[in-house]
This record gives sequence, C-alpha cells and structure tokens, in this order.
Amino acid sequence: MSRWVALDWGTSSLRAALLDADGTVLDHHEAPQGILHVSAGGYPKVFASTVERWSLPRGTLCLASGMVGSRQGWREAPYAPCPAGPSDLAARLAWIDDAPGGLRVGIVPGVSTDTGGLPDVLRGEEVQVLGALALLGREDGTFVLPGTHSKWVDVRGGRLAAFSTFMTGEVYGLLRRHSILARTMPEDDGPLDEAAFLQGVQHARRAQGLLHGAFSARTLALFDWLAADAAPSYLSGLVIGEELRACDLANTGLDPVVVGNPALTRRYQLGLSAYGLHAVVPPGEPAWSGLHHIARALESTQ
Amino acid sequence: MSRWVALDWGTSSLRAALLDADGTVLDHHEAPQGILHVSAGGYPKVFASTVERWSLPRGTLCLASGMVGSRQGWREAPYAPCPAGPSDLAARLAWIDDAPGGLRVGIVPGVSTDTGGLPDVLRGEEVQVLGALALLGREDGTFVLPGTHSKWVDVRGGRLAAFSTFMTGEVYGLLRRHSILARTMPEDDGPLDEAAFLQGVQHARRAQGLLHGAFSARTLALFDWLAADAAPSYLSGLVIGEELRACDLANTGLDPVVVGNPALTRRYQLGLSAYGLHAVVPPGEPAWSGLHHIARALESTQ
Repeated sequence: MSRWVALDWGTSSLRAALLDADGTVLDHHEAPQGILHVSAGGYPKVFASTVERWSLPRGTLCLASGMVGSRQGWREAPYAPCPAGPSDLAARLAWIDDAPGGLRVGIVPGVSTDTGGLPDVLRGEEVQVLGALALLGREDGTFVLPGTHSKWVDVRGGRLAAFSTFMTGEVYGLLRRHSILARTMPEDDGPLDEAAFLQGVQHARRAQGLLHGAFSARTLALFDWLAADAAPSYLSGLVIGEELRACDLANTGLDPVVVGNPALTRRYQLGLSAYGLHAVVPPGEPAWSGLHHIARALESTQ
Repeated sequence: MSRWVALDWGTSSLRAALLDADGTVLDHHEAPQGILHVSAGGYPKVFASTVERWSLPRGTLCLASGMVGSRQGWREAPYAPCPAGPSDLAARLAWIDDAPGGLRVGIVPGVSTDTGGLPDVLRGEEVQVLGALALLGREDGTFVLPGTHSKWVDVRGGRLAAFSTFMTGEVYGLLRRHSILARTMPEDDGPLDEAAFLQGVQHARRAQGLLHGAFSARTLALFDWLAADAAPSYLSGLVIGEELRACDLANTGLDPVVVGNPALTRRYQLGLSAYGLHAVVPPGEPAWSGLHHIARALESTQ
C-alpha cells in the first residue's frame, strides 16, 4: 500500500487527508461540503475536486466514512452488525462503481446493534472508536462520543461489542431554545459556568429522570435561586447528567474514553468527575487512525 | 353563603360557573379568554362581562384559580407551601381591590414544595386535587394531573403533602414536531394506536431513560419495524412511560387518581395498567368541587 486517501464525510462537513502506508498524514483538506450541502447526483464531482490536488494514480485507495454511506449519501453502505472490528468493516465496504479518475473508493458501513429487541445504529463513530483504540494502544473499554446524538460504545477485543445512543445534544437544544425553560434564559449561552453545570449533573443524579429534573431549571429561576446567565450551563449539566445517570457508571469498571470536540470533552470530563471517574482523551486524530486500521485490514485480506 | 361564582381561569381558557351554597352548578360559561388572550389591564373588563349575565348583588363571593394568579395574571397570589388544604388556601387568598360591581373577588394561590433543596410549583391543579378528593370522599392518595406539565401529587389528611412536575406533554410535542424523530412520522397524530402506545410504555420501563429510549422511535422506523402511522402513539407511550417509570409506582401502594381530559386519561389508564395499577377517575367536575371546598373553608373562618 502506497499513498492513499481518508475521507471523513459527515452531515455538515467533508474532511480529507492524504496518508502514507504508515498512516502518517501528508496533507489535509476541509470544506463545508457535508451531505446536507451536496445534491443527490453531486458526489462524484465534489469528490473529484477534493482529491484532484493530490494527482493520485489510478487504483489509489480512498476510504470514506460517515453519513456519506447513509441512504441520503453517495451510496448506501448497509450496517455491519456488532461485534464489528477493522476486518468486519473492511469486508463490508461499499465500493463505488466508476469512481472519478479510476480511483478505488470504498465506503465504510455504519454499525448496528440489538438490545432487548430494539435496534440501535451509528455511522462514522465506528471509525472514531477504532482510531481512538489504536491511538491509546487498547483492545477494550467504554467509549463516549458526545454530540447531537451521543454514543456509548462497549469495546471488547478490538471490536465494537454493543452501544447505546442518547439524544442528549438534540434534547438540550430543544429544551434550551423551544421549551418554557427558554423564557428565563439569555439569548446566548455565554461561557460555561462550571459550578452551575456541576449542580445540574448532581441534581440529575438524584432526580426522577429528565422530565422531572428539567423543570427545576424553571422553578429555580422563578425563585431567583439560579441566575439567568448560569441557566444554560445548569440545563446542560442536567441533560448530560441524565445521560451519565442512565449509563449506570458505577458498574463500568473502566475510566471512559471521551472522543469529541474540546468544548464537549470538557463538559464530559466535569460530569464524569462527579462520578469519581477520569475521562481518558486520546491523542491525535481518531478518524484518520481508524480509517488507517480498516485500510490495513483490507490489505491483509488481499 | 348564598349564590356564588367559581372561575377556572387558565392559560388558554376561562370557565365560570354560578353555584349555590351546596356547590350545585346553576349555570356555566366558557370562553377562549385565558390569560394569554387578556392584556395586562384587561382583567376587570373580561371578568365583568363574564359575570354580568348573573346580575350578582354587591358582595357576592367570586373565587378564581389558575394562571390568573400568576405574575402575568390579574393579581399575583404567592404560592402557599405544602402541606396545603382548603383552609390553608382560603387563608392565603389574594383579594382584588375595587373589583367590578362591588363583588368580592379572591384568587386562589398556587402551591409550592421543596424536595432535596429544589423547589417545585403548581397553580390551578391544587383546586382540581381538592375537588377530586371531595368527589371521591377521600383524604389520601396519589393524584396524577396529566398535561403539558404533568403533576403527581401526594395527598395526606386532605392536604397536598408534596408533588413533582414532569414536562411530559411539552417534551412529547418537542420530540414529535421538532426533533429528528419527526422525519419518520406523518403530519397528523391520527387515532391512538393502543398496541404501539403500550409497546412504548413497556420499552420505557426497561430503557436507560428517555434520552436513550426516544432514539428507538427512529431506529425502529429505519428498519421498518414500526409503521409511520403508529410512530406518534409509540412515542407518546415512551414519554408517558418514562414519567411512570420515574414515579417508582411499585411503592405507592394506592391506585392513582387521574384527573385530566378523556383522551389523556385513557393514555394514563393504559400506561398504569402496564404496571398492574388501576386508574381511578373521579366523577363530576373537580374544579367546581375544589373551589366549593375552599369557599366553605373561608366561610367557616368568618
């Protein structure tokens, strides 16, 4: 395997990297060309204009992960069931026919799981988890990927064993902007008030669930026990705290690995500290590392 | 006490009744003149035009409950702390100075409670609970008032002892209309699909909280395991089921009394049946009965 291309192609943005056989990043490009901004037939053109800067020879491997593999993406890559590791995903790549420039473009499948008769899915996070595993030199652990829909992934023997989705970021946004709670909050979130955030986490820990707990953001404001400026941080603590409560952290045994942007990672570090847990943060770029391990697994089978 | 007037003056509507000393309803009037539709100085005029049909003598007692006593209402009636029964509320009525026609207009206070350092409030439901108690000839019990913000009230010795608010109706509306779950649902809710509703209740019972459970409305649709027409009922079961789960119903000991509109009452009857509980539904009109008991308590102190 010589030079190859990794693409992290999500809902809002497209990131691409040129890597060598060892996984070292040689060049990197980012554009606001997520699948929300690409028309149904527009993927080959966006792809070609992204990689043309690297003058790749025909047959060069390009691996793409994220929502580009969803029903609304370039080509649907059906979910791989758990347990799913690099080899499982490599075996289920969805290959693009007639890709621009004769390149060999494979799309990484999302992963599905089934808990108590109910399915759950993720797409894009599987690569982040595999990358974080490699960057940390681990084979096992609990991985948290916070966001609009947070994912908690149980990893065993280098493969995703099971996971759960939490609609944390989305529900925070709905409560923050569209519920009665918005009436006593300022327009802007402002900087994180860590004390108010932790107060929310602690309350969520002992509350009767979020439907009850969230109302305290209103009553505390009503009695002037919570400053308006601190209310968004308090509510964030309540909602993230509900996620942490639901995860039954006392029984995980391992300090969770948090893979997210710095601002969200900070909130989960704080929240986990309230449970006496230390958040492990992987060094480097999990997406490129994860795609590199899938590329290596692919190579080893060929 | 001769003829008197009871007013249930909420956010969206105003209901008024003329009653005799025994609490028998002699006449009744309803209009879409809730406090959202009344300007700041407009209360005396709306009140006068509502009661003028009854040609009341000066000094006639008029008791009003609901959001009319909030900061945005006619006059703020500060919350009475728990425990709160008819005498406690009668002692804290907020009287209107110079009411139209020389009538004696008192506004019933809402009730506040404090659980684990966090305040909770209700306003209007206290009258419903006291009325339901009287209609059922009870002194104790667990009372559920479903709605935008559901209230679970613990009643002991004829007084509200403690309560909890759940943002159930509001969160259902946000998830139903504004979240990613809306994408796989039809525009109209349609009739309740009782099987799908109960499936939601059962899932909520074993789920890791609502943030996780709600996502199943998406994944079940994604795998075609849930028909689009049944999805609103399933989600309603998930959200109401989360409220029931959080209430720790195994320990209440009593079958809850449900005070709500027929459609919501039916959903709570179904949901409680999944926990092996029978929903008790009071006969008659709890609001008039509740105000009648406050009026009697007021009379007995004069």
